[in-house]
Amino acid sequence: MAVYTDVSPAELEAFLSGYDVGTLTSFHGIAEGVENSNFLVQTTRGSYILTLYEKRVNRDDLPFFIGLMEHLAARGLSCPQPVAQRSGAVLSEIAGRPAAMVTFLPGVSVRRPTAEHCAELGRGLARLHLAGADFALARANNLSVAGWRPLFEAADGQADGVAPGLAAAIAAELATLEASWPKGLPAGVIHADLFPDNAFFLDEKLSGIIDFYFACTDFLAYDVAVCLNAWCFEPDGAYNVTKGRALLSGYEAVRPLSDKEKAALPRLARGAALRFLLTRLVDWLNVPEGALVRPKDPLEYLRKLRFHQAVDSAQDYGLAA
Amino acid sequence: MAVYTDVSPAELEAFLSGYDVGTLTSFHGIAEGVENSNFLVQTTRGSYILTLYEKRVNRDDLPFFIGLMEHLAARGLSCPQPVAQRSGAVLSEIAGRPAAMVTFLPGVSVRRPTAEHCAELGRGLARLHLAGADFALARANNLSVAGWRPLFEAADGQADGVAPGLAAAIAAELATLEASWPKGLPAGVIHADLFPDNAFFLDEKLSGIIDFYFACTDFLAYDVAVCLNAWCFEPDGAYNVTKGRALLSGYEAVRPLSDKEKAALPRLARGAALRFLLTRLVDWLNVPEGALVRPKDPLEYLRKLRFHQAVDSAQDYGLAA
Repeated sequence: MAVYTDVSPAELEAFLSGYDVGTLTSFHGIAEGVENSNFLVQTTRGSYILTLYEKRVNRDDLPFFIGLMEHLAARGLSCPQPVAQRSGAVLSEIAGRPAAMVTFLPGVSVRRPTAEHCAELGRGLARLHLAGADFALARANNLSVAGWRPLFEAADGQADGVAPGLAAAIAAELATLEASWPKGLPAGVIHADLFPDNAFFLDEKLSGIIDFYFACTDFLAYDVAVCLNAWCFEPDGAYNVTKGRALLSGYEAVRPLSDKEKAALPRLARGAALRFLLTRLVDWLNVPEGALVRPKDPLEYLRKLRFHQAVDSAQDYGLAA
Repeated sequence: MAVYTDVSPAELEAFLSGYDVGTLTSFHGIAEGVENSNFLVQTTRGSYILTLYEKRVNRDDLPFFIGLMEHLAARGLSCPQPVAQRSGAVLSEIAGRPAAMVTFLPGVSVRRPTAEHCAELGRGLARLHLAGADFALARANNLSVAGWRPLFEAADGQADGVAPGLAAAIAAELATLEASWPKGLPAGVIHADLFPDNAFFLDEKLSGIIDFYFACTDFLAYDVAVCLNAWCFEPDGAYNVTKGRALLSGYEAVRPLSDKEKAALPRLARGAALRFLLTRLVDWLNVPEGALVRPKDPLEYLRKLRFHQAVDSAQDYGLAA
């Protein structure tokens, strides 16, 4: 939950006067988003989400994120659509923060996705990849293989305090992946954080994808690997191959994977597991004073990593042979 | 800001199946309410606020609060209207908490009320008092004069750590008010916490009153005194008699004050100031570990109390002579 910055009604009304969105009828801080402050703004014209970008978001990245949402929405992908001011500008400022307003997307995220949700998600992810193919901007993935060692160093020898042997397990995996990370796979815009809380469903159909603030340019199949990690494991840690099959066949129905991508999938899945293990570990070790947010368990991703290390081929994830 | 209890989409859908409100289209925890967890729930039928009553709310009081909102809404007051389940019951349970769903009220609260807002508020408060006159249930005001000494004792000798001399100032005022608290004034349902954040406006008109969780049975003029404290002081601590005049004349246009109520107003205003001074003091001394909420400054109400102590008559508040 997060509303880091307070916005007064008067400030908001002044801000909205720059937009052609009617007059304010209600606004509520919403308890969502770890990086930014979010408000649900309702006007005589409709509902919007106002996001204030807090300091963890690099301002230089905002044109990429906002441009990407515009680009994807223009291509029919259901995602938040940035609202332009009368001046034409999309990025604005309120309460001393860079801010943007996007359309409100109906839909409800699922906590326990079914195989059908996974199939929908796979199709949606592939549509996102296709829709992003001609997006002009690029943004390096600073949480891919080159970014993992600095994260590990940020944990500063404290990993074994979280679980005995964790530091050695990470060090070994890091060395393996640095030496063998796939090269030359099809690349483009990826979401990079498409967890169930960033996907909305209505009547069991994917109704929208939100939170593009980790989006970047990277291997498309890495995004698939992130989703296998995020959608296809059960709470007890077991991989659910039925869900994996549904996700992968949903994806391939829209964008078939190349042989090279299929071969790389186990390694990409290990990398995705290590990425979330590392960021969760760093968050775990750095809970800010006074935080109400309980950090997510890094060890969930150690268990997933162990699974991927034992995988022989993409067929083990449920990929059609 | 507060969302104390997490609700999963699946839990919410099961909960909503007991209501005739259509199907869920979105829900968001909202960062409002100090005592309870609140969610904005949107369905194919409309928008609702789902409130989970956390432990600071006495469950035995819930029928009073919910019955009052039903009663007032049925009499045309714009306030949240509890939504009944198919069974007819209004109080339900979700995530192990007592819970109720009320209609969503459009409107925006003001931070810096103008005199016109104060006039609107005064009229609305009087309408609330008239609409509540035939409400059958009663609830003692446990934050009136009999409740103040226990609060002072809860501060446990720590008041002077907040401001030198504060303990003596409170002790003296407490003794004065205990000995001279008005008796026999017209009583009925009062809101008891009608601060600007609990009043919504649209186009400068009062569009709704929310948060009835301090409502109780007490002197109606005490509610007026609470509002004078909450609406008519400037940020620099000065009493704004123009706003006071607007609030009081707005109130009297709907429900004229009796001579006895007018005479009691300065004393009631002192009591209201002491009440918020004491509760804020206790909150100040008991910030829960990990709280994101910065407690409100108790000394704001010491300054207001000083003003009231110097008041000679209700005319000093702007009451028409």
